[in-house]
Amino acid sequence: QMPRGNLETISHRALVLAQLRKWLDGLRFKEAFECMRKLRINLNLIYDHNPKLFLENVEVFLQQVNSINHINLFLTELKEDDTTQTMYPCTSKPASHSGPGVSGKKVDIVCNALRTTMEILDAQKYCLCILTAHVKKTVPELEIALQKVHDLRVNPPSSAGVSAEEALKYLVFLVNVNELYEHSLGTYDFDLVLMVAEKSQKDPKEYLPFLNMLKALETNYQRYTIDKYLKRYKKALHHLSKCGEEHFTEVLNLVRDQRLFSEALDLYPSDSSQYKLLSVAYAEHLVEQSQPEQAGLLLWRCGELPRALQAFVGGASWRYALSVATQIPVPPDQLALLARDLADKLIEQRRHTEASVLLEQYGKDCEEAISTLITGAAWDEALRLVYLYNRQDIIETNLKPALLEAHSTQTSFLEAQKALFSRHQVRLAVVRELKEKARLEMLDEDGPDCGDAELYSEASSALTGSRLGSRYSHSNSRISSRSSKNRRKAEGKKLSLKEGSPFEDVALLHALSQIIQISDKMREEVHSLLEALVLFHYDAQAGALQREYSELLQLMETSVPLIWHEGLQQGHTPITGPNSTANSITASFQQQRGSSAPQQDAEFFTPPKMRSAVKWKLWVLK
Amino acid sequence: QMPRGNLETISHRALVLAQLRKWLDGLRFKEAFECMRKLRINLNLIYDHNPKLFLENVEVFLQQVNSINHINLFLTELKEDDTTQTMYPCTSKPASHSGPGVSGKKVDIVCNALRTTMEILDAQKYCLCILTAHVKKTVPELEIALQKVHDLRVNPPSSAGVSAEEALKYLVFLVNVNELYEHSLGTYDFDLVLMVAEKSQKDPKEYLPFLNMLKALETNYQRYTIDKYLKRYKKALHHLSKCGEEHFTEVLNLVRDQRLFSEALDLYPSDSSQYKLLSVAYAEHLVEQSQPEQAGLLLWRCGELPRALQAFVGGASWRYALSVATQIPVPPDQLALLARDLADKLIEQRRHTEASVLLEQYGKDCEEAISTLITGAAWDEALRLVYLYNRQDIIETNLKPALLEAHSTQTSFLEAQKALFSRHQVRLAVVRELKEKARLEMLDEDGPDCGDAELYSEASSALTGSRLGSRYSHSNSRISSRSSKNRRKAEGKKLSLKEGSPFEDVALLHALSQIIQISDKMREEVHSLLEALVLFHYDAQAGALQREYSELLQLMETSVPLIWHEGLQQGHTPITGPNSTANSITASFQQQRGSSAPQQDAEFFTPPKMRSAVKWKLWVLK
Repeated sequence: QMPRGNLETISHRALVLAQLRKWLDGLRFKEAFECMRKLRINLNLIYDHNPKLFLENVEVFLQQVNSINHINLFLTELKEDDTTQTMYPCTSKPASHSGPGVSGKKVDIVCNALRTTMEILDAQKYCLCILTAHVKKTVPELEIALQKVHDLRVNPPSSAGVSAEEALKYLVFLVNVNELYEHSLGTYDFDLVLMVAEKSQKDPKEYLPFLNMLKALETNYQRYTIDKYLKRYKKALHHLSKCGEEHFTEVLNLVRDQRLFSEALDLYPSDSSQYKLLSVAYAEHLVEQSQPEQAGLLLWRCGELPRALQAFVGGASWRYALSVATQIPVPPDQLALLARDLADKLIEQRRHTEASVLLEQYGKDCEEAISTLITGAAWDEALRLVYLYNRQDIIETNLKPALLEAHSTQTSFLEAQKALFSRHQVRLAVVRELKEKARLEMLDEDGPDCGDAELYSEASSALTGSRLGSRYSHSNSRISSRSSKNRRKAEGKKLSLKEGSPFEDVALLHALSQIIQISDKMREEVHSLLEALVLFHYDAQAGALQREYSELLQLMETSVPLIWHEGLQQGHTPITGPNSTANSITASFQQQRGSSAPQQDAEFFTPPKMRSAVKWKLWVLK
Repeated sequence: QMPRGNLETISHRALVLAQLRKWLDGLRFKEAFECMRKLRINLNLIYDHNPKLFLENVEVFLQQVNSINHINLFLTELKEDDTTQTMYPCTSKPASHSGPGVSGKKVDIVCNALRTTMEILDAQKYCLCILTAHVKKTVPELEIALQKVHDLRVNPPSSAGVSAEEALKYLVFLVNVNELYEHSLGTYDFDLVLMVAEKSQKDPKEYLPFLNMLKALETNYQRYTIDKYLKRYKKALHHLSKCGEEHFTEVLNLVRDQRLFSEALDLYPSDSSQYKLLSVAYAEHLVEQSQPEQAGLLLWRCGELPRALQAFVGGASWRYALSVATQIPVPPDQLALLARDLADKLIEQRRHTEASVLLEQYGKDCEEAISTLITGAAWDEALRLVYLYNRQDIIETNLKPALLEAHSTQTSFLEAQKALFSRHQVRLAVVRELKEKARLEMLDEDGPDCGDAELYSEASSALTGSRLGSRYSHSNSRISSRSSKNRRKAEGKKLSLKEGSPFEDVALLHALSQIIQISDKMREEVHSLLEALVLFHYDAQAGALQREYSELLQLMETSVPLIWHEGLQQGHTPITGPNSTANSITASFQQQRGSSAPQQDAEFFTPPKMRSAVKWKLWVLK
């Protein structure tokens, strides 16, 4: 309730609030309460004004107010907001009042404080207020309130006290009766349920058979049925688990339907048959959710070895799979087949070295293992197996041809990277020059508030031909296949390398950064290829590759400070000087902001890091 | 030769230059040349004025000038500088003249053009000019010039021509006589040498015995001796290599002394004994230079297996080492010892998985292999070997205790990281607030040109206590051991986490970035530990670790945008507004620049990337 927007009222209210604060400071709650009721001032202020003082003087408050209705009014009006901050801010006192040291929610704190005091003072007299205090908490304590009503029925109070009937009526007034009915069911106390049901609009023909059915059940099963009815599935599972083995199918169904796998596993000893069945169910669910490895772990630990094996194979978790397979144990010929199957999956994922372990140790096929290593360019490991199995013939038949092929593949890839890099770099310089030109022209002509990136890019696209543009799409395909993820990300931001696109410069930065990162990653690969080439006297090829790669890295290293030059992200220095005015400087500054891509692209403005510490060159090559 | 600083001269010279240009354009070289000589105008202008025109009319030039001395004068005055750019800039014509399409060095181009034309016109007549053209090239062609002199002696010219004696005299005038003597030696032509020696001040008692000694030698050995004397070691090696096996020791010494290993290897067939000896020498050199792996490759490919093995072992190149060892073949018991030795080296480098391959496959010690994997936290691979060798007993004795230890280590490490992260973050907020405060105060007081970072930091150190400072040095030790390299780098830039240090905020950013990167790297490690814990029913420990790590990553993810907030690198927005002036805005802008660390620290202002794509959590844990 806000002031009515009338100056007289407002100033009047300010006076009233000052008086109220004095009363509250002086613990004159009665005067304050009466006044606030009359003038419709939010009662929360009684607490908010000085929470600490109020909590220390709850008894004084109760005794002064001394009216069940008024206490209930106060309780029902409680809200989390601090009225000294929102409705009735006080300029003279800082906002340091709101309880430092008092933790938890305000409503709960006040309800608890009042309730405890009322229970000590006179539980019978304050009966309805106590119920209110339970019900008004942020998570209403309906079961406790209902239990208190039930107690009143069992032990009727003296004539002065509130009867169970009256209390229940009051509760129904405070809370939705259907909610109350459900919570009464939740107490598993049928007397209470009947009591509430009678107050409700429910048809006895409906609820009586239901209650009778429930009464007939074994306690745990009864509670499970109620919990399930109330959709309290965790509690339901808990009770159902106590109902013995004959109900275990129901447990499984409940667990599956509500995905309570973890909770269910906690309820059974890990060596029980139920635990195993639950694990199997959980594993099925995990496989459905594409988590075969975790499924396998669950199955393995409960001894379901064949199923575990299946799950591990599905997830290409080859180490686990073979552990299980040897534990079963799978016969040697089947083990070899399994190994071959897994190796194929790993090769698909370009995990050649791992695949070779499978083929060698379980597939007993050293030739296949070696050729897999050769395909994966793991030259040193391939050689190790060649000598371990005395298969030097493979060097001539497979290894050397593969080496030469790898050499030519790498060489042409490096050439393509270099060409693309230079092309992007040249284009970037052009775009930057055009943007700078457009920027200066615009400053001259229009002054502030015209820093629109669209205009620049249109200017730049108009000024340049499409001499280079057509090549982009073609030569990019190589990169995009290696980093399609980044590409997609860039597309999401509408970065385009098309000439004249709004953020072409940013797109070029992105593309250049990609090329650098891809090239830089090749250090180890090139190093091992160079070593293998030298070992087989292909010194000329190795030398050429080393030169090519070295030149590429050199080009990138010298280009990085030019591309990501100082103050790149800051845009350009604002134009200042004898002829500039406050407006022109501000304009030039604002324009910088506008002319660069959105801030989240900050990463594009940071030069990619090159791993200069990774030494890849061979000294023996010139 | 610059104008004499006298107005009359300058304006006179401008007129002269205009006239010269006209003459040159009209191919009136004679008039131009005479005028330039008289007025001491640099003769380069003849070419520089219009290189293309000059090169097309070399013959005209020669015929007009028609004086050996003048042509020599022109040739000796040639310099790389373009006089139309430096000494005689011409305002009316743009600088597009200097030969587009003419590549190479100007001096060489002119020398070659004149020499070729003169040789066609009259080689005898222009003899001295031709010699000048050889000698004046950027790399003087002294041998060719000497050879021409020698030819004159062998075939004396007609009476009109220049005698060998005259030509040599002229050469000695152009070039230092000692240099000429050495180059004459380099032609291996003793007549020539004697001819030059006679012109020199050298004592015949000195050079004659030397020349006689040389003459007595076999041709290749003679040339080697000369090359070596002239310090032309590559040529020396080339000639020495042709002197037969009896001189091979000298070859080896020369190669070792001058490190001409690669060159030497090219001179012998790869199956020769010399090639092998050279490879051994090269390998020794490479080992000395801490390149044992490359040494091993050279030794291996020339069949020096035991030495190759030694080199590979030295470099912990275990795959190569075992390839060689099985090729030798090393007897099984020694192979096992070798494997164990290598495994120890790998374990030192924390390469446990590789060490286990050695111990398993060559050491035939599966127990040691498994325990190495356990030490290296390669849980899945350890299990694979446990089942492969049917050593389930190790699970109880080693694996489970190691799992629990790893769990507690990781947990306490994560806790420490979290505490340190929060502490740095809190401190960063404090430092930033102080800097901002100091900045605003300074703007109020002093206006522009006071953006001194030292002042801020002093303000901040004065304002804050050292409540947190003492903890830094202690709790950092964990990080520094993991990233001592980065720490050293930071120290190099004088970044210090000490409270009040000049760039404390940058140092904090660096430290926070470090913690994030270290924590983010643990995804795979934590994932595999969680799996192993779950497999052995340590669900509670796994759950706690997952929660701890998840909270840490969450904390970092939410903190990153707060720490590396928008516009961090740009400093603060300049203070603009109705009360600001051009000066105040400029000042606030300049101050931002001054108040942040040097630009090369840009990396600190970029938020570290977290690999959110790496899924490490287990679904089966709550």
